[in-house]
Amino acid sequence: MNPRRTITGFSNPTVKLLRSLRDKKHRKREGKFLAEGLRLLTDARESGRLPEMLVMALGRDEHPLLSALEAAVVAAGGSVIETEAEILAKITGKDNPQAVAGVFAEFDTGLAALDRSRAPIWLVAQALRDPGNLGTMLRTGDAVGAGGLILLDDCADPFSVEAVRASMGAIFTQQVVQARWDEFHAWLRGGPGQLVAASLREARPYRGAPYAAPCFVMVGNESRGLPEDYEMACDLRVTMPMKGRADSLNAAVAGAVLAYEVLAALDPAAT
Amino acid sequence: MNPRRTITGFSNPTVKLLRSLRDKKHRKREGKFLAEGLRLLTDARESGRLPEMLVMALGRDEHPLLSALEAAVVAAGGSVIETEAEILAKITGKDNPQAVAGVFAEFDTGLAALDRSRAPIWLVAQALRDPGNLGTMLRTGDAVGAGGLILLDDCADPFSVEAVRASMGAIFTQQVVQARWDEFHAWLRGGPGQLVAASLREARPYRGAPYAAPCFVMVGNESRGLPEDYEMACDLRVTMPMKGRADSLNAAVAGAVLAYEVLAALDPAAT
Repeated sequence: MNPRRTITGFSNPTVKLLRSLRDKKHRKREGKFLAEGLRLLTDARESGRLPEMLVMALGRDEHPLLSALEAAVVAAGGSVIETEAEILAKITGKDNPQAVAGVFAEFDTGLAALDRSRAPIWLVAQALRDPGNLGTMLRTGDAVGAGGLILLDDCADPFSVEAVRASMGAIFTQQVVQARWDEFHAWLRGGPGQLVAASLREARPYRGAPYAAPCFVMVGNESRGLPEDYEMACDLRVTMPMKGRADSLNAAVAGAVLAYEVLAALDPAAT
Repeated sequence: MNPRRTITGFSNPTVKLLRSLRDKKHRKREGKFLAEGLRLLTDARESGRLPEMLVMALGRDEHPLLSALEAAVVAAGGSVIETEAEILAKITGKDNPQAVAGVFAEFDTGLAALDRSRAPIWLVAQALRDPGNLGTMLRTGDAVGAGGLILLDDCADPFSVEAVRASMGAIFTQQVVQARWDEFHAWLRGGPGQLVAASLREARPYRGAPYAAPCFVMVGNESRGLPEDYEMACDLRVTMPMKGRADSLNAAVAGAVLAYEVLAALDPAAT
């Protein structure tokens, strides 16, 4: 009746496996990723995603949401593990770990399975290198009612601990697709869809631009921005005011300012 | 005529001093901070800020901007040091260091010296813990033509390597003030100024809200948001649409979406 298992010691194979999930190579090999914290795991549960394995700190405070989470994991046939707080800290790589972490199966929606009519806004990021920016874009996507985030070319791993943390649960509600540009561009042109990018090339002001659903809001790499041919393939290039010395915004910030503008245009009642 | 000095070895006292500047305690004691990269240092120079000490990698590629920088530092009586690339990497804490770094005197404008009429927008952050978010807010402030960033209560250090890097040069163009809330609030009410925060409490939609210059756009701590009494002290509380599961945006993102809305209201010609 009690499916909990207690593990201890840094050399325990399960502890080693869990720690290895902080590393991209091991995540890919196992097809699993880590998420930590009761709030994040509760968001996951309420979004219909349960961890295959729940790891709880010994000596934790009880919480009704934690009990609900454990019951759901057990009912779904998952495993529940208890371990020392310091081992949990090593697993999550945080000095002050939250009292619970979960191991989830990675999910990836192929482009072919993406239903573009499901949402008026989609976010697209090209060669985004910072996992914090990536997670922040997922979080913004959730806020503007986007359908998901399409990651082009070599982006940071959306299943890294940093990206999952920065997403604040949106990793579980937003669809995440990884694709090459050629593949994405062919898919995009196979149906309705407006591709929009912030650009300095032949761009019009971002406010009042003729946004249309489904609108794909694309941002580029943190250092280099978007390749010129990607920008030129856009249906709409828009520019945000830059009143200071800098000629660009942080990628996640640019995506958010633009996405909120698109939301205001497509769904004025929401704003 | 050649004021360059070559230093070598991790135990060299200057190397030790430079490395210690990655640590907040040592920055405060020395009153100095590090910035790296030719672009950042050129931004600084063009904004009238020169490093007291310029550190260049041996074997670097020559560049006219680097020569201009070195000449300016020498002319201003600063010192120029050459060292191995691997030592520069240890100093900046980056695996792939750029070929140049500079040591600057920290600057801090007290509230009393702040001329609020100098800009229509000012950003305010309360207990912002993430140096990346702080640097991103400086960068956004530069973009919207803000006068500066006012840091309330216990924020991350704006002079940390991470914040300086994320600011993309805006640390040299934006005024940075550190103050306690009571101090700030008293100063604010001593002159014209509208305090605005994103809030869920008795808030109105952020679009079309009656923003007025000088407008102080305030965001709160990444986990806890703003204290209730800070929000209630605002002249205007606004809310952004949250169409998903989450009830908040990343702090730097929220500040940026709001700041661009304020810019559009106060300076429609700019957008």
